[in-house]
Amino acid sequence: RVRLGEWIESTRIQRFIILVILLNAAVLGMETSPALMASFGTVLVSVDTACLAIFVVEIVLKLIAFGWRFFRDPWNVFDFLVVGVALVPAGAGLEVLRALRVLRVLRLISQLPQLRKVVGALLAAIPGILSTGALLALIFYVSAVMATTFFRETLPEYFGDLGASLFSLFQIATLSSWETIVRPAMDEHSWAWLFFIPFIILAAFTALNLIIAVIVDAMNT
Amino acid sequence: RVRLGEWIESTRIQRFIILVILLNAAVLGMETSPALMASFGTVLVSVDTACLAIFVVEIVLKLIAFGWRFFRDPWNVFDFLVVGVALVPAGAGLEVLRALRVLRVLRLISQLPQLRKVVGALLAAIPGILSTGALLALIFYVSAVMATTFFRETLPEYFGDLGASLFSLFQIATLSSWETIVRPAMDEHSWAWLFFIPFIILAAFTALNLIIAVIVDAMNT
Amino acid sequence: RVRLGEWIESTRIQRFIILVILLNAAVLGMETSPALMASFGTVLVSVDTACLAIFVVEIVLKLIAFGWRFFRDPWNVFDFLVVGVALVPAGAGLEVLRALRVLRVLRLISQLPQLRKVVGALLAAIPGILSTGALLALIFYVSAVMATTFFRETLPEYFGDLGASLFSLFQIATLSSWETIVRPAMDEHSWAWLFFIPFIILAAFTALNLIIAVIVDAMNT
Amino acid sequence: RVRLGEWIESTRIQRFIILVILLNAAVLGMETSPALMASFGTVLVSVDTACLAIFVVEIVLKLIAFGWRFFRDPWNVFDFLVVGVALVPAGAGLEVLRALRVLRVLRLISQLPQLRKVVGALLAAIPGILSTGALLALIFYVSAVMATTFFRETLPEYFGDLGASLFSLFQIATLSSWETIVRPAMDEHSWAWLFFIPFIILAAFTALNLIIAVIVDAMNT
Ligand code: NA
Ligand code: NA
Repeated sequence: RVRLGEWIESTRIQRFIILVILLNAAVLGMETSPALMASFGTVLVSVDTACLAIFVVEIVLKLIAFGWRFFRDPWNVFDFLVVGVALVPAGAGLEVLRALRVLRVLRLISQLPQLRKVVGALLAAIPGILSTGALLALIFYVSAVMATTFFRETLPEYFGDLGASLFSLFQIATLSSWETIVRPAMDEHSWAWLFFIPFIILAAFTALNLIIAVIVDAMNT
Repeated sequence: RVRLGEWIESTRIQRFIILVILLNAAVLGMETSPALMASFGTVLVSVDTACLAIFVVEIVLKLIAFGWRFFRDPWNVFDFLVVGVALVPAGAGLEVLRALRVLRVLRLISQLPQLRKVVGALLAAIPGILSTGALLALIFYVSAVMATTFFRETLPEYFGDLGASLFSLFQIATLSSWETIVRPAMDEHSWAWLFFIPFIILAAFTALNLIIAVIVDAMNT
Repeated sequence: RVRLGEWIESTRIQRFIILVILLNAAVLGMETSPALMASFGTVLVSVDTACLAIFVVEIVLKLIAFGWRFFRDPWNVFDFLVVGVALVPAGAGLEVLRALRVLRVLRLISQLPQLRKVVGALLAAIPGILSTGALLALIFYVSAVMATTFFRETLPEYFGDLGASLFSLFQIATLSSWETIVRPAMDEHSWAWLFFIPFIILAAFTALNLIIAVIVDAMNT
Repeated sequence: RVRLGEWIESTRIQRFIILVILLNAAVLGMETSPALMASFGTVLVSVDTACLAIFVVEIVLKLIAFGWRFFRDPWNVFDFLVVGVALVPAGAGLEVLRALRVLRVLRLISQLPQLRKVVGALLAAIPGILSTGALLALIFYVSAVMATTFFRETLPEYFGDLGASLFSLFQIATLSSWETIVRPAMDEHSWAWLFFIPFIILAAFTALNLIIAVIVDAMNT
């Protein structure tokens, strides 16, 4: 058991797994092309299945070697889930399950220490921005309720219901052609800028503070 | 009185108020849907009224317990105003008053210390950016007067009057499809880029210094 | 002379000048409205002329009091120029001169120490970004020559000559609907993304370093 | 040899070369104008050829003076390549080779120490962002495979194949009119925002960390 564990985590095996992930990534990319599938479909699907089989064998061997301790490392849980999703029998949500298979390529993160470190840093930044993020969510919710009340009837395609309003406010907050929403709103309600421009400034100012929280955090560590 | 004050500020009561705010937020969201209002209108309005009643009772009890001292805490003033707005008899501005009722949800900020802290940090950042903000406002005003003089006749939809110019310059400063304004201006006045591109660079540079002022402030505290 | 100098720079006179600037700003804004000019044109023009007269008297008194030393303070030179521009007899460039009169409002900067400080900080940031700015200009020039050679014939409205290319590349670098230029370019030359996407990344990366230079500068002072 | 090396690197010669580069830059810009080429084509081409000849002589003299040591300085290699590209006989890729001739203007970077320093700083920032950049590339690749699977049939112009999806996701990540892609996607698949909005947030958050890595690096040096 101990020797199996050492062998499966040896540099040689880990490098081999990385190569299989890269090969699988290429094959999953090629499978999106109907032309390539028409010509080489059987080969692509076979290689894909072989890669999946190697991943399953790797995880089963790790489970044998380490037992329940395997699940103590969150990266192992991650590997288990992204490989496991490919084994779920495809029923109704066939296309979604097919699309999720490509998440397997994210195993590259758990295999490469440099990427693990970056993801670790990203995750470590989250607690510091939770409360600013919650405030931003609150501003969006309150603004969406107000926008729906104000503009539901005059601009139903943008503010027809709460979901549409949240989407439109997100578009406005990303400053992506926001005037294509606000100018028509002002044609109907000339005061509409009094709602939208403070919203833009407030959202930008809160987002700025969220970014600063990440920067200050990164500097103090 | 002292015991009433202790009771109303006890953890149990505060948690109950937070739950009522969350319930009220959900109901106010549902009230924006004509379909839900048609089916459950009476229930939604009743729950909404009940939430409002609880807030009113809470504030009245606090007023009894603390007297005028209640108004010394700005968050209490905030609660008083956002609850009070719902009690104003709806006259002409019915829709606006209705929309303002959702501000009640912002009581979540005054109830949750983490959100209070974030808002406190946002407010604390304002004094440091007042003068840069004033400079930005001055740049906008001077540019808007110039833009109106230059382009009022050729592009009346964008620069027809001072208000339209301010709005269009704000759109240009947010870099949101600014070329849809500047390209037509250049078709009429080939030199127009000499006005707009320096404006973009100047506005971006001033805004950058405003952002840096916030960052430097955040780092020194 | 000394007493004249002390009087003209006394707090009372300076406050009066600030009020005149604000009044002049309001009047210059109102003068952009044909409706207001039709009703109150004579009043507005009179007040405008009176404000200008006050500024001229102020500067003449300062010249008497301080002589050539007046021009040693760059803010005095600034005041002299923005007031002087209004006295140039309007010839061919009538509209441009009219528009430049509003620059007088910028005297608010030289009168208010807080705004002077902000502008001073902005100007102090320039030397630190000159070389990065020069590199950015070089990248734009080289890219514009290349873009004109590549796309002059297929997209003449965007890359018809060097000036058009510089403008279009500036639009692309500001990420403002850049795909409305690059997608049509790719319809003609499928490899066009190999030119534009590296340009976007290079311009963004250089601009980022320019911003960082400003931040690092601001922190070290 | 030593004296030739000293002479070719003397301030006088280097200043002369800078002037030739600037002259060549102007001529290469003027050559993009068919009107100027029709009137002064012979002159422009002659000056261009003369500039090139001067660069060739300069490099040959440096090769004589320094021998193989010449190639030890990466800036010399850079000069050698951007001058050498103009001597490649133009065959099939005529227009591309023509466009590449303008890269010669980038010799300004190797001649001016200030620009060399800026480019050195840009290059020095790259190692620190390699792993975050790799993670970003991985997110793009996985998202592009998923987007192609989901939207290939309903939005073939945006997600018809892996290349189209990568381009569209880059457009979405730059927040440039991203709603013109996502709104039509939601018309067909109402859940599409569940794919795109997390992608935007994830890409923005990863890009933010890439920017922070550059800032932190710049501060610690
Ligand atoms: Na944009
Ligand atoms: Na944008």
